[in-house]
Amino acid sequence: MAKKPYFIGVDFGGTSIRAGVVDKDGNVIGFEKRKTQAELGTDVVFERLAVAIERAMRAADVKARQVGGIGIGVPGPVDQERGVVRVLVNLGKGWTNYPLVDRLERRLGLPAWLENDVRVGALGEYHHGAGQGLSDMVAIFVGTGIGGGIILNGELRTGFRGGAGEVGHTCVNGDDGVIDVTGQTGTVEGIAGRAGLERQIREAIAAGQTSVVPDLMQTVGAGRLTSRVVVEALKQGDAPMQSALAAAQRALGRCAGNVMNIIDPEMIVFGGGVTERLGDKFVAPIRKFAQEHYVARSEARRIKIVPGQLKDLAGVVGASVAARKFL
Amino acid sequence: MAKKPYFIGVDFGGTSIRAGVVDKDGNVIGFEKRKTQAELGTDVVFERLAVAIERAMRAADVKARQVGGIGIGVPGPVDQERGVVRVLVNLGKGWTNYPLVDRLERRLGLPAWLENDVRVGALGEYHHGAGQGLSDMVAIFVGTGIGGGIILNGELRTGFRGGAGEVGHTCVNGDDGVIDVTGQTGTVEGIAGRAGLERQIREAIAAGQTSVVPDLMQTVGAGRLTSRVVVEALKQGDAPMQSALAAAQRALGRCAGNVMNIIDPEMIVFGGGVTERLGDKFVAPIRKFAQEHYVARSEARRIKIVPGQLKDLAGVVGASVAARKFL
Repeated sequence: MAKKPYFIGVDFGGTSIRAGVVDKDGNVIGFEKRKTQAELGTDVVFERLAVAIERAMRAADVKARQVGGIGIGVPGPVDQERGVVRVLVNLGKGWTNYPLVDRLERRLGLPAWLENDVRVGALGEYHHGAGQGLSDMVAIFVGTGIGGGIILNGELRTGFRGGAGEVGHTCVNGDDGVIDVTGQTGTVEGIAGRAGLERQIREAIAAGQTSVVPDLMQTVGAGRLTSRVVVEALKQGDAPMQSALAAAQRALGRCAGNVMNIIDPEMIVFGGGVTERLGDKFVAPIRKFAQEHYVARSEARRIKIVPGQLKDLAGVVGASVAARKFL
Repeated sequence: MAKKPYFIGVDFGGTSIRAGVVDKDGNVIGFEKRKTQAELGTDVVFERLAVAIERAMRAADVKARQVGGIGIGVPGPVDQERGVVRVLVNLGKGWTNYPLVDRLERRLGLPAWLENDVRVGALGEYHHGAGQGLSDMVAIFVGTGIGGGIILNGELRTGFRGGAGEVGHTCVNGDDGVIDVTGQTGTVEGIAGRAGLERQIREAIAAGQTSVVPDLMQTVGAGRLTSRVVVEALKQGDAPMQSALAAAQRALGRCAGNVMNIIDPEMIVFGGGVTERLGDKFVAPIRKFAQEHYVARSEARRIKIVPGQLKDLAGVVGASVAARKFL
């Protein structure tokens, strides 16, 4: 059976829902972005999700019969066999064991496929972004958390326990005494994740430094250290932010070096809000640290460590790829 | 064409040469072990290697026409297309770009296949040792250096640059200031490799502690911190050795945890001299640290981290597997 021309990709996050109608070349021909408003509960949020998809279809002038299915990337682990979200920490307890595939199929009359958001982001960059044409690629997304998607011989690696790609929880500085949100010491996320950056800023302020970050968090970050806050603070020459980011880049470089030393992929692609805003300015120091930690010195300059190309559409495009692949 | 019943596996190390005739079930039916005597130069050592193979065949009562070929594991990188050893640091400069496959084929009239020693060890444990029947397995060999072999979906992963599995050079304690033999900071090898253990013993002695290790290195180690020296010192309750080993186990546990978090294999197998002598007494603390560093806490107890089963025959059996597979 010839596949239908379009698949829908949804990036279902704690802050916003992005839905797109995507053709087989990865072009987003209709798009809708809405706030998630997780505080309104699962029923309302589910309906917002469904309407986002309908609006994206309308924007693309595409009918359900032209659509092969819906792929949804969610910020947490999923049970693909049952089509169930296991847990979405950022969206609230109502989402634990939520039967999202079944609900969407009944609401929209289209088959649906669930995947973790980081993994669909990796699929997006691999099939239609920075990794096109390669055999192996690892994508690392840096945001609130830090996660990775691993593609080997063209296939997404899920791992024996479904846990492959958890690069944010690797240990790069075991004796540093920093404990991350999962209770682990010396991890990349404890330094370079959002909580890690916030902790460093707090410590700098406690040590007597001045920083514009707390003000920016209120004015442009809605109380949080968003990527926009990071970039604004850097623009203003904020010293604590500069130091925190440098530490994050060093940790991420060590992490990338470890990935190189262990699985030796052809390319590592970085994504997430700060990468989208700063591009290679953010990635270049990571690449330098990775090269220093890569054992084969003569090969180090061949390491391709680059920013993603799809930016905030990586999840939408990748979710459509997953749906096209598995539905 | 039906393959011939026997393949020869050779573990060609800096200290000793082990050669075995191996049947398709991984049984070593004839064996010879000789000192390498690297100081005598490439011509003499090559002849010792050839004679070791001939003696193993004689011990097995096997003729050349019953043998499908010879697999050789060497302690360094290889160029498999040209059948050339790239460099063997422990054996001297004469081995750089040495055409070992061609020389062996002409000397013995059998096809030969070259592979890195750690990778053949992993193949041995996977096909005939601890990893039998699994889909994915990582083997980590701890000795002078620390190297790994990665098997995914039943196939050895070599990596884009041929560098996959260099777990010893991953960074687990980046700010510790320890620089390993390759000039890298915070690596597993810098703590748990032979030079790392020696450094810790030296530092303990310089700090006023007493240790039997220097004496044991002379009496049973021929001047080096061999696995026999490690085990003897532990038997005598040597405190600096106990501390150094505990630090090594913590670093190896973090390394194993990182491997789990990144590629999530079904099993990690440890090998090398100390593991062979101490078995699960050595591996159990590594497993505990790995569990602490593995992100999926509920799954941590399912992690299989075990000592190898083939002990000092892993290389011989694995080299025969490689030859059987690729010749």
